[in-house]
Amino acid sequence: MSKIIHKWKQISLIEEDVMLPTGQAITHTTIHHPGAAVILPITAEGEIVLVHQFRPSLNKWLLELPAGTREGNEEPLCCAKRELEEETGFSAEKFTSLGQVTPLAGFCDEIQYLFVAEKLNKTNRYECDEDEVIEVVTLSIKQLEEKIVDGTITDAKTIACLSKARLCGYI
Amino acid sequence: MSKIIHKWKQISLIEEDVMLPTGQAITHTTIHHPGAAVILPITAEGEIVLVHQFRPSLNKWLLELPAGTREGNEEPLCCAKRELEEETGFSAEKFTSLGQVTPLAGFCDEIQYLFVAEKLNKTNRYECDEDEVIEVVTLSIKQLEEKIVDGTITDAKTIACLSKARLCGYI
Repeated sequence: MSKIIHKWKQISLIEEDVMLPTGQAITHTTIHHPGAAVILPITAEGEIVLVHQFRPSLNKWLLELPAGTREGNEEPLCCAKRELEEETGFSAEKFTSLGQVTPLAGFCDEIQYLFVAEKLNKTNRYECDEDEVIEVVTLSIKQLEEKIVDGTITDAKTIACLSKARLCGYI
Repeated sequence: MSKIIHKWKQISLIEEDVMLPTGQAITHTTIHHPGAAVILPITAEGEIVLVHQFRPSLNKWLLELPAGTREGNEEPLCCAKRELEEETGFSAEKFTSLGQVTPLAGFCDEIQYLFVAEKLNKTNRYECDEDEVIEVVTLSIKQLEEKIVDGTITDAKTIACLSKARLCGYI
């Protein structure tokens, strides 16, 4: 049994019966989310393009990698291309998958698809949703890592994506 | 105005009126969460203690750092001590804060408080919630990083916490 409690944007709050690996049946509450793309845009100079974005849920400005939710059955790569351009005004000639992360496994099924974006071109085709307030910021990797250490950057997907890029040899 | 749409465990789904920095008023839907502690337990041999945990929301087993939700107004450090012991059967003599991350800023106000735990002692005082199915796993940092690269580890808080510990010189 699965019951929708509430829906907003592309997100649903669901109550569902789940069988645990132990054989025990439980009722579990979960946020069903269509998934998102997260983009690590690297400039020709090796700098990273980020967005400084007001987040109403935290009532704070966060410094994050550009990212956004899949529209309908959009392929993660298409979502990455669209969100990069809408949020930063850059397109990219080269996208490379960095795999997936799950941001909140305890009560949300969101999968975030990570991409490195290279060979950037400025298009200035910004397009923000009505609740998005965004500024574009470019930082060196050293500056970015300093902001992770000093706590300025708290966004988990940004830290995780940068870490995967580092471990995979992209930066 | 703030309206609770649904509550479960210590979590609430809220609709609230928010003023954006532009002056525009919007209605925003957010998940209100009391916050959680995430623990990076390092053994005397420099290995990391993780939990292999069944996650009903994703219908998958995930390999993650031990973590859990604050109970009431519990201090993050107390939460870290309690969750480490309940999930892994280890206590630790030394805890060091690694700051905070925000796992899902788009629609959730959860703050995850990160701690390094050292000087571990086996107490075997496990205590799991009814919906937690957990096995304890110890890996070297090299093994852990290989599992991040090959996609076995997808949990964003685990990758972010390990990255912060690396950047801060703890591992």
